[in-house]
Amino acid sequence: MEFRVNKNCFHQALSAVGHAISLKTTASILSGIKIVANDNHLLIIGSNSDIIIEKAIPGMIDGVRVLEVNDKGSVVLPAKYLRDIIYKLSDDIHVKLNANHSVTIKSAEIVTDLNGLNSGEYPDLPLLDDAVTIEVRSEEFLEIVKQTAFAVSNSESRPVLAGVNMTFRDNVLSCVATNSHRLASSELSLETKVTGSFIVPSKSLNEWTKLMNEGEDIVHIIISKSYIGFKSNHISLFSRLIEGSYPNVMGLLPKDPKTVIAVDTDQLIKGIDRACLFARGGRNNNVHLEIVDCTKLRISSNSTECGKIEEYQTIKSIKGEGEVSITLNGYFLMDALKVIKEKEVKLSISGAVKPVLIEPGNGAASHFHLISPVRSS
Amino acid sequence: MEFRVNKNCFHQALSAVGHAISLKTTASILSGIKIVANDNHLLIIGSNSDIIIEKAIPGMIDGVRVLEVNDKGSVVLPAKYLRDIIYKLSDDIHVKLNANHSVTIKSAEIVTDLNGLNSGEYPDLPLLDDAVTIEVRSEEFLEIVKQTAFAVSNSESRPVLAGVNMTFRDNVLSCVATNSHRLASSELSLETKVTGSFIVPSKSLNEWTKLMNEGEDIVHIIISKSYIGFKSNHISLFSRLIEGSYPNVMGLLPKDPKTVIAVDTDQLIKGIDRACLFARGGRNNNVHLEIVDCTKLRISSNSTECGKIEEYQTIKSIKGEGEVSITLNGYFLMDALKVIKEKEVKLSISGAVKPVLIEPGNGAASHFHLISPVRSS
Repeated sequence: MEFRVNKNCFHQALSAVGHAISLKTTASILSGIKIVANDNHLLIIGSNSDIIIEKAIPGMIDGVRVLEVNDKGSVVLPAKYLRDIIYKLSDDIHVKLNANHSVTIKSAEIVTDLNGLNSGEYPDLPLLDDAVTIEVRSEEFLEIVKQTAFAVSNSESRPVLAGVNMTFRDNVLSCVATNSHRLASSELSLETKVTGSFIVPSKSLNEWTKLMNEGEDIVHIIISKSYIGFKSNHISLFSRLIEGSYPNVMGLLPKDPKTVIAVDTDQLIKGIDRACLFARGGRNNNVHLEIVDCTKLRISSNSTECGKIEEYQTIKSIKGEGEVSITLNGYFLMDALKVIKEKEVKLSISGAVKPVLIEPGNGAASHFHLISPVRSS
Repeated sequence: MEFRVNKNCFHQALSAVGHAISLKTTASILSGIKIVANDNHLLIIGSNSDIIIEKAIPGMIDGVRVLEVNDKGSVVLPAKYLRDIIYKLSDDIHVKLNANHSVTIKSAEIVTDLNGLNSGEYPDLPLLDDAVTIEVRSEEFLEIVKQTAFAVSNSESRPVLAGVNMTFRDNVLSCVATNSHRLASSELSLETKVTGSFIVPSKSLNEWTKLMNEGEDIVHIIISKSYIGFKSNHISLFSRLIEGSYPNVMGLLPKDPKTVIAVDTDQLIKGIDRACLFARGGRNNNVHLEIVDCTKLRISSNSTECGKIEEYQTIKSIKGEGEVSITLNGYFLMDALKVIKEKEVKLSISGAVKPVLIEPGNGAASHFHLISPVRSS
C-alpha cells in the first residue's frame, strides 16, 4: 500500500470516522482506523460494535487532485495517534505500508513510523444483500430526527425505548420516540414503495446528524434484516437495528382536551429555563404551570433549600376551561419547546393527571410532543 | 438592604468573584458570594481559604447610571444560584433583603426568592495595616507572570515550589519559579523603594491574569506580612503568601556552555509538539535533540508501542562544539518556548547531563528558562 493524499482531506476523513470509535473498547483492533487504498480512492473506516462509519476520499475534488494511489492495500492504524499526527503535518502526506503492518508517513522533512495491525482482523462491513433503499431529502431527514431522537429512554431496562421507531407506510415516514414519561412524534412525506417498521438506536441517528453538512442534498437509507445504513455523497454510516417490538403509543393522544392555550414559544422557553434553576434540586424537576384569570400563565418552581421563582406570561389565545394547573418535568418541556421553530406554541391540557400535548401553534403541525404530568406533592 | 442594578454589571461582577469560589468547600458560607450595599457602590466578594476577590460596582459607569442603592446592608447568597438566575433575567434588577437573610430579586414580571446566610459569618478581609504598595504597569506585570508562573511545582512535597518567588530590589522586580527539573526567571524594571522577597501561590497569580482586561493601566501590588494584594480599578485580589524560604537557584545558570545554537522559535515549537505525540507514553516525555553536521537539528522521539518520529530543522547559527545530543522532557521545552515571543530562540547546551538554557534569540532577554536533561536510557 502506498499513496499520497492532501492533509486536510485525510484529517477530515479521520475525524469523521473517529466518531464511531470508542476509546473504551476492549478489542484493540476497534481502537484503530482501517485504511483501504483502491485504484482511484481511499476508504477510511471506523467502527464500534454498533456503528460503522465509512468515508471515501476520491482522486479529485472540485477538479483538484487530492489523492494518488501508487500501490493498493490496507492496514489498521491506531485512531488517536494517526489523527493527532496527521493534524500536525503539512499539506502533502505520503503513506507507505512496511512489513509487520507498520506504515511510514512522510511530510516535508518529517518522517513518522506508526505501528499498525493486520487489516484482515478488522470486522467486515454488514452484508446488505437483501437491502432496500429509500431516498429522502437530507435536510428534511435531519429535521425529523432532531424533532424526535431526544425523547428516547436512557434506561437500559427496556432496550426498544433507546431507539426511534421509524415506520414507512403509504409514502410517509413517521418517527416516534418515548421514555414512557414523554413522547415525540413527527411525520415526513416521501416517495417509496417500502413498507415496514424499524427501531434505530438514537445514538446512531445523532452521529449521522453530526456527520452531515448543510450542503448535502439526498440521503439514501438502506435497510436490511438487522442493519440500517445512511449514505450521502462520500460518507456512509451503518447501524445495528434494535430487536423487539415497539409499543403502540398512539392511543395516548388526548382526544378532548379541557383547555387549549397558545403562548409565545421563545418567552415560554426562557420562563421554563428560569424555573428549572429551582427545580433541578427535586426528583422530577417540577415546574408548575397555572392559568390565572384566563389571561396569564403563571410559571413557578420552588426548592425548600434554595428559594423559589415565579413569573407571569401573556396567554395569546385560550379555548375551554379557564382554571387549570399542572406540574411538569421542566427539562422535558424545554426539550420539546426547543424543537418548535414556530413563534407560537399550543398546549392542550386535559387535567392534572393526563398528558399535555405540545404542538407548533400554526396548526399545520407535522410533529407533536406529549408529556405526562408529575403528581404534585 | 435594597438596590437596583444593571444586569450586565451585576453578572460580570458575580462571574469575576466566582473565580475565588470552590464548589468543593466544606464551609457553606464560602460557597456563597457576599454582597455589601454602601451609599454609592456595591461590593461583591468571593473567597476560598487562600484567595479573596472583591469587585466594586460604582453608581455610574461612563456617565450611565448602573446602580441605585436605596438601603444599605449586606448578605451572603449561594454563588451558583445567584449567578445563574441573574444571567437569565432582563436588564433592570431589583434586590431587596428580607428577614431571615433571604432576598427577593425582581426583574420585569419575574420574582425570585433566594435563601441566603448572615453576612456576619463571612470571613473578614485580611488586615493590611502594615502593608506597602507598589505600582506596576499592568501589561508588563501580566507578562512577567506569564513567563514564569507555569514553571512551578504541582507536587505538595515542597510547598514553597508551588509559588513564584517575587523579589523587589534596586528598582527591579524579579520572578523565579521552578519545580526542580525546570526553572523560569524574568525581570522587570519599576520604581519603588520596597525591598523584599515573597512567595506568591501561582494559582493566585493565574487568577489575577484571568481577571485583567487589556484596558487596565496600572496594578497596585499591596504587600503585608502574610498577604499580597493586587488592585486595578474596581477589582482586587488578595492572596495568602506561602511561608518558608525559597531555594537559591541562580547558581544553576550554566557559565560556559559547550554549544549555543539559534533556531526558528515557531518551527521548533511545532517540531517538539509533534515529537511529544510519541513521547507522551514514556515517563519523562523524552524528546531527543541532536546537532547533525553543524547545520541541522534532528528532533526525534519513539515509543516501543506506537512508533517513532524524526525531523530535521535548520540551525540558523551555531557557536562551539558541533556534535551534541541531549534528551529533554518535551512538555517542559514546549512550555518555555511558548512564552518566547521573538522569532528566534537560543539554546545553550553544556553537555548531556547539564541544564539547557533557553532564551529569546535577540540577546536582550529579560527572561530565561533552564531545563535539566533526562538521562537517556
